[in-house]
Amino acid sequence: MRACKSTHVVLLLLVWTYSALNTEAAWRQQSIVSPQVYKDRRVTFRLRAPEAKKVGVKAQFQQGLQPMTRNEDGLWSVTLGPAKPEIYEYSLVVDGLEIVDPSNSWLKVWRKNSKNLLEVPGEPPMFFQQQQVPHGTVHIHRYRSKTLGVTRGLYIYTPPGYETDQNIKYPVLYLLHGMGDTEDTWTVVGRANVIVDNLLAKSKAGPLIIVMPYGHTPSAPPDMRSLGNYRAFEKDLIEDVIPYVQARYRVNRDREHRAIAGLSMGGGQALAVGLGNLELFGWVGAFSSAVPRGQEFDNLMEKPQEINGKLQLLWVGCGKKDFLFQANQKLIERLKADNIKHVAHITDGSHQWRLWRQYLDTFVPLLFKTEK
Amino acid sequence: MRACKSTHVVLLLLVWTYSALNTEAAWRQQSIVSPQVYKDRRVTFRLRAPEAKKVGVKAQFQQGLQPMTRNEDGLWSVTLGPAKPEIYEYSLVVDGLEIVDPSNSWLKVWRKNSKNLLEVPGEPPMFFQQQQVPHGTVHIHRYRSKTLGVTRGLYIYTPPGYETDQNIKYPVLYLLHGMGDTEDTWTVVGRANVIVDNLLAKSKAGPLIIVMPYGHTPSAPPDMRSLGNYRAFEKDLIEDVIPYVQARYRVNRDREHRAIAGLSMGGGQALAVGLGNLELFGWVGAFSSAVPRGQEFDNLMEKPQEINGKLQLLWVGCGKKDFLFQANQKLIERLKADNIKHVAHITDGSHQWRLWRQYLDTFVPLLFKTEK
Repeated sequence: MRACKSTHVVLLLLVWTYSALNTEAAWRQQSIVSPQVYKDRRVTFRLRAPEAKKVGVKAQFQQGLQPMTRNEDGLWSVTLGPAKPEIYEYSLVVDGLEIVDPSNSWLKVWRKNSKNLLEVPGEPPMFFQQQQVPHGTVHIHRYRSKTLGVTRGLYIYTPPGYETDQNIKYPVLYLLHGMGDTEDTWTVVGRANVIVDNLLAKSKAGPLIIVMPYGHTPSAPPDMRSLGNYRAFEKDLIEDVIPYVQARYRVNRDREHRAIAGLSMGGGQALAVGLGNLELFGWVGAFSSAVPRGQEFDNLMEKPQEINGKLQLLWVGCGKKDFLFQANQKLIERLKADNIKHVAHITDGSHQWRLWRQYLDTFVPLLFKTEK
Repeated sequence: MRACKSTHVVLLLLVWTYSALNTEAAWRQQSIVSPQVYKDRRVTFRLRAPEAKKVGVKAQFQQGLQPMTRNEDGLWSVTLGPAKPEIYEYSLVVDGLEIVDPSNSWLKVWRKNSKNLLEVPGEPPMFFQQQQVPHGTVHIHRYRSKTLGVTRGLYIYTPPGYETDQNIKYPVLYLLHGMGDTEDTWTVVGRANVIVDNLLAKSKAGPLIIVMPYGHTPSAPPDMRSLGNYRAFEKDLIEDVIPYVQARYRVNRDREHRAIAGLSMGGGQALAVGLGNLELFGWVGAFSSAVPRGQEFDNLMEKPQEINGKLQLLWVGCGKKDFLFQANQKLIERLKADNIKHVAHITDGSHQWRLWRQYLDTFVPLLFKTEK
């Protein structure tokens, strides 16, 4: 009885504390679970909004705006699904205004806009799920780009064992993000670190280091498909990022152990920088890529024999519903016509993270095999 | 003329692309700058919400809810300040609902609630501002806690030069977060890495490694000031985190080179774990701390001579308006009465990040001096 009473007092004190720190409203919001993912893969969304007239949820696994219903406390909720095991984006819409769910701290932060994410787990666990396997480390760097004259962020993944076995050198994949992304998106949203942890645990890939630079450059023209737009990035990558990495990480320094890949804008960059620097990169991957346009890029493919002689892999993946599908098909036709060796990986789907996680999971096991 | 036209086409294409990827609304939101901080330290907040009836901003530098006004496009805005150079929290309130600003990707993510942050820079730059100095690295780990039976996050800061000079060993500060926080809060919100980068650049502190573990434990009782609550955390820290760090980082392993500090709940943990393990920690810092209550904690201070003989520093900081001020004053009185050497650092202010950044900036330069 006494224990019970003291727990009560403590709880009251805690509520008071939080009220003082924030507001009672925030505290009440705090206790809401949203999204709640059930074992049967249905999902409940909740939002306290007593004064709202209309609240709904836009979830990637369900078409259209799904209305939520209000209880007498002003708590809105709806249960949707079941949904296939996957990572989905969603947002809440309150009286016409799209907002993020205040109860969910997992966000896809766009450069200037955020959406919530939720995971519907599978059984057995999906390739993108955190599992009980050895985990690598993600390193957050800020480096001075001499070529751009600014300080920029840089994420680096090292595989499990990197810190404990000091004698091994590793191959490197330079992995580039899309136009709405930043240097952390491949880990926070793309789960690159988790995907590779899982591949390594199953011996589906050999250990590697992944370098994820920031892909935007100051005062770049707005056409993400112009090669000119990628020149500043290329210079930063080659003259600043690669030397920075090589001075700090135990990496192999030859073309055979250096890959470049990216999604959308980053796929365009991977094609431009990879094909433009065959002495540096032996492996190129383009995921749903914004294939560069124009003569300058066409020129990069002028010498098929040189490309075939130096590139170990040119991998082009795209979904059939992608708004960039035609551009990628055109690229593949050109590669075929010119007898440039490549892997065309055409799948269902559109311009979505779901695909890029899958593409990474498919692409990484192909890398750094010594036989050609 | 031609260039101009093609730019136009490109821009249209880009708008179309984004419309297809998201929605036109999201694209338009994308182009909004909010918050916009001016040189005179005034700040403009903006939100597109055509259907809202009342929009306001709650900013830490201004009392109360400040109304925003609507233009004919449905864009709401208000200019506030000037504000003192500082990092502030804010949120937007739309028809009574508190939301985060969709144009601002810098968030203080609470365990289940987010607020926006904004920086008003100073001239010369403040101690918490990113400056053109050498930057350390923040490492994101996930480790298996054997004592807790779960996998947990762990952030580690290494100073500039750590990766390039492989022969130096470093002292370590274990730095603990508060109740609403997670393992990334000391860097994302507290700017611990930036503050220490700046201290090192000015030679105000010697290089050190900072380990920031996740402080919550499964099924912990809700009283953050009970010592019992900290036992599981203490076991995880001593039996899992410290060995994990020592196997992977070049750290000194003696008490003289190991410190523990924290804020609020983490300050309570630092006191409990630090005073409870004098053979492990030579330096203890408690920032606005939830001083543990009860006989068990009192017992830890029973042998003043042993504490004075082993601890190099016991640092207690608190703001006069903190709801935990009385508890901290009581602790300081006890330390005085028992002749336990300590530094009492009483300041203005309440239970806020503003203070904890300052406290870290004050505390770190005191650490790991060899003379006592």
